[in-house]
Amino acid sequence: MSDEVRRVGRELVYQGTILEVYKDHMEFANGNTAEWDFIHHNGAAAVVPVMDDGRILMVRQYRNALERETLEIPAGKLDKPKEPGIDCARRELEEETGYRSENMEKLLSLRTTVAFCNERIEIFVARDLISSHQHLDEGEYVDVKSYSLNELKEMIFSGKIEDSKTIAAILAYESRYVHVK
Amino acid sequence: MSDEVRRVGRELVYQGTILEVYKDHMEFANGNTAEWDFIHHNGAAAVVPVMDDGRILMVRQYRNALERETLEIPAGKLDKPKEPGIDCARRELEEETGYRSENMEKLLSLRTTVAFCNERIEIFVARDLISSHQHLDEGEYVDVKSYSLNELKEMIFSGKIEDSKTIAAILAYESRYVHVK
Repeated sequence: MSDEVRRVGRELVYQGTILEVYKDHMEFANGNTAEWDFIHHNGAAAVVPVMDDGRILMVRQYRNALERETLEIPAGKLDKPKEPGIDCARRELEEETGYRSENMEKLLSLRTTVAFCNERIEIFVARDLISSHQHLDEGEYVDVKSYSLNELKEMIFSGKIEDSKTIAAILAYESRYVHVK
Repeated sequence: MSDEVRRVGRELVYQGTILEVYKDHMEFANGNTAEWDFIHHNGAAAVVPVMDDGRILMVRQYRNALERETLEIPAGKLDKPKEPGIDCARRELEEETGYRSENMEKLLSLRTTVAFCNERIEIFVARDLISSHQHLDEGEYVDVKSYSLNELKEMIFSGKIEDSKTIAAILAYESRYVHVK
């Protein structure tokens, strides 16, 4: 806890389907108090699937929260809080794209929105993709297509790709594997 | 709306301090129904402040949601839903770091966590920084320090920097301005 601001209470105010919503009671060094929002999420994993020709497999799906389709790297929630990220990433890769991989490497992990949520996403690079079968969850409808890194960068900088895990992952892949000095 | 999954109702279940929490009633093409979480956030802006020597100004602060300190680019919520991102970024730069800039350029925008939240962050690059005065909000305590791009990349790939807007912004800055071919 910090010296200047400390949490003196945490109340569950809403149990969602995948989220728990809390009201945190905060106290500042000057004695003032405030209520802050806190959202608990169990975490997720995602994967940058790189084909043998260097193109990257992406999924297009309708996102209720944005009321439009998004283009993202394959990703999904952990099955249970302690599930290893790599197991989740391997499963989501196969479920969403219909490809498996035995060559998965950690790229980075991120926190989606640190001001109010603890959601963590572990991100992997998958290579040596093996054709398998797509099998989606109910309410999940996903189009799969491959793009070159330059096409993806153009979409990031023109605002066509906005998803933060996707932007971080694609640019991290470029920084680490394409622009190595 | 998508053909395969559509929202048939939205209920406000909790009004937070900065968030609105909704229960969305969804219906699938097969007739089944589900309840999905949706969080409304008014949006934010952030800035990559580049000093004349190429080092980047970063802020270290305690984050209640993670229960630890984070190293991030300066950022903050829009004052009102329609506030232009560049005005918010300019204000947060001065408030958090004590530097102003009249040379702000759009870098990218992102959505922090598209599975359940509409939060959008517009990110700018600020140059020609002019020394001014830090003035923080109540409950905000921020240490400011500059880092080289290589130091920041080392921290991203070793997991010391996890904040998604910071990772996306730093790597986008590198991709656009440092690795130009």
